[in-house]
Amino acid sequence: SRSINLAVIPGDGIGQEVVAEGLKVLSAVLPQDVKLETKEYDFGARRYHATGETLTDADLDALKRHDAILLGAIGDPSVPSGVLERGFLLKLRFAFDHHVNLRPSKLLPGVATPLAGEPQIDFVVVREGTEGPYTGNGGTIRKGTPHEVATEVSVNTAFGVERVVRDAFARAQARPRKKLALIHKNNVLTFAGHLWTDVFNRVAEEYPEVTTEYMHVDAATIYLVTQPERFDVIVTDNLFGDIITDLAAAVSGGIGVAASGNINPSGEFPSMFEPVHGSAPDIAGQGKADPTATVLSVALLLRHLGYEAEAARIEDAVSADLAERTGKPARSTSEIGDALAVRVAG
Amino acid sequence: SRSINLAVIPGDGIGQEVVAEGLKVLSAVLPQDVKLETKEYDFGARRYHATGETLTDADLDALKRHDAILLGAIGDPSVPSGVLERGFLLKLRFAFDHHVNLRPSKLLPGVATPLAGEPQIDFVVVREGTEGPYTGNGGTIRKGTPHEVATEVSVNTAFGVERVVRDAFARAQARPRKKLALIHKNNVLTFAGHLWTDVFNRVAEEYPEVTTEYMHVDAATIYLVTQPERFDVIVTDNLFGDIITDLAAAVSGGIGVAASGNINPSGEFPSMFEPVHGSAPDIAGQGKADPTATVLSVALLLRHLGYEAEAARIEDAVSADLAERTGKPARSTSEIGDALAVRVAG
Ligand SMILES: CC(C)[C@H](C(=O)O)[C@@H](O)C(=O)O
Ligand SMILES: CC(C)[C@H](C(=O)O)[C@@H](O)C(=O)O
Repeated sequence: SRSINLAVIPGDGIGQEVVAEGLKVLSAVLPQDVKLETKEYDFGARRYHATGETLTDADLDALKRHDAILLGAIGDPSVPSGVLERGFLLKLRFAFDHHVNLRPSKLLPGVATPLAGEPQIDFVVVREGTEGPYTGNGGTIRKGTPHEVATEVSVNTAFGVERVVRDAFARAQARPRKKLALIHKNNVLTFAGHLWTDVFNRVAEEYPEVTTEYMHVDAATIYLVTQPERFDVIVTDNLFGDIITDLAAAVSGGIGVAASGNINPSGEFPSMFEPVHGSAPDIAGQGKADPTATVLSVALLLRHLGYEAEAARIEDAVSADLAERTGKPARSTSEIGDALAVRVAG
Repeated sequence: SRSINLAVIPGDGIGQEVVAEGLKVLSAVLPQDVKLETKEYDFGARRYHATGETLTDADLDALKRHDAILLGAIGDPSVPSGVLERGFLLKLRFAFDHHVNLRPSKLLPGVATPLAGEPQIDFVVVREGTEGPYTGNGGTIRKGTPHEVATEVSVNTAFGVERVVRDAFARAQARPRKKLALIHKNNVLTFAGHLWTDVFNRVAEEYPEVTTEYMHVDAATIYLVTQPERFDVIVTDNLFGDIITDLAAAVSGGIGVAASGNINPSGEFPSMFEPVHGSAPDIAGQGKADPTATVLSVALLLRHLGYEAEAARIEDAVSADLAERTGKPARSTSEIGDALAVRVAG
């Protein structure tokens, strides 16, 4: 019989609340014969303050034994900026080689967008997750003096670029429109930019059916608000991907519905699924957070583990739920979770 | 008697057309007693193909003797990506220490925006122009092999950050709302991010009347489309500034109206003014380009040289012209220039 052994990291702020709903929907959607085991892990601000730890070797050993990881949110204003991000979130992405950061953007019927008109938005961003300016390379000299110099080194390898570019081409090939855009800034960041462009053009020869285009990141932000229908699959570097996926989330319904997978395609390490939004301490504990992004992250998790039908059921339930929201009073976090659980079970 | 000794660089594509209109409006707005001298320089794709040169030491010596530079656009698909950008545009910004890249965004009445509703947009971005990932530091090893590694080094100095942060605080202090936002990614790019944040917080103490906030660049893209009225002055790094000013231009009327100044505040070297848009080779030579961004760049140029009343006259003329566009047939580049010249003279 089948089983899913899931690591659950509620984390900080609204993380706790949204993860509870994600698990509720997960339990409701899974067929009876699938045994779901979950183990909760304590990471984030509370543990950091209590122990000084963010993510230890023992933690990584324990997490490694799971089939996948569901994360709520990590981050709190009481912790200096960067400590939990570099010490937990990025450490985990690098340790588990999550090189495909998958972020779909789909504007569902009935969902509000800040854009005028009725934009058609349905694309997916494949963001590199283990290289670029995120490596933590760099340093500071003469800190705090008028002569301080601080550097950040973006590291890009043919190995790292090629595997994520290949992943993106395969995804584009599998979609009806078969379009792939490379987003970079190869006219300024010429060393990294030429590597990305060369690898992209080389792999493109193997996918004659995929229509490709190259776009500078600055121009891409314009197209995301003026012609979002232009995009089908996007592949990009770690930092550009961070920036454009927040913008993509904003135009396609907000970060309340933006899901994300930090994927290790080989399966050597468990992949991690999380909403794009953060811990939102201002609304934490009030039942105000929208769990939809977490529920959609559960769908990505299920698809990654091979439960395609269940993933689609969740996505359909979310579509139906969102379509009926207009004009209705706001519901609490658990009310939305309950409604989605009923829909996926029904 | 007063005089302006202007270097004019029409450049590539629509650069020629829009600069002609910029000069037309400049001549029309200047008082009789101001002697305008212009000298045209040949830079861009044509010269690169003919001579292999992008910007020589002799060119820099000649340009240095002017009071200011007006640039149309540089760039053509016939030149490999990066050659003219690094070899001309960035070389000039670095050589003339254009560390304040000023990019105002104002949604004028009657102007279309891709955003729904009636957003209020009136802010200015102060983008650092001589540091960050734009320095060209970095390199490539094992080029073209499966073992290629390419790096890009973002270089940030207390000296470079402080001067642009001070410029931004002074601008915020002079505006009615007195708000300043620092945009960076200090939770990931911790070395550079902490330098920026520390300098920003230190200078803030000297400006108790200025309300400050810090925002990650990814979150900033969300606010730019959901709450653009939130912004008054923004200060940011070279790359983040590149990205968010294109997005800012898109939401506040498009790059057809986005102006830019590459400013050396000390006056040691001439400052350069240019539209944010590029050379748009697809519409070049057809009289289709909107010269408004160039005309507004002329206003920034005049303000920089102390001609405040003339700058304001141009801005008022552009506002009036834009307000009357809706429903009218499209005009040619020179028709728009003519209309603006009439308005500023009148
Ligand atoms: C919190 C931060 C480290 C993270 C990132 O920059 O990747 C977040 O913005 C994201 O997009 O997942
Ligand atoms: C053309 C390019 C070098 C330039 C930049 O990146 O600064 C442009 O995008 C801009 O914003 O002026």
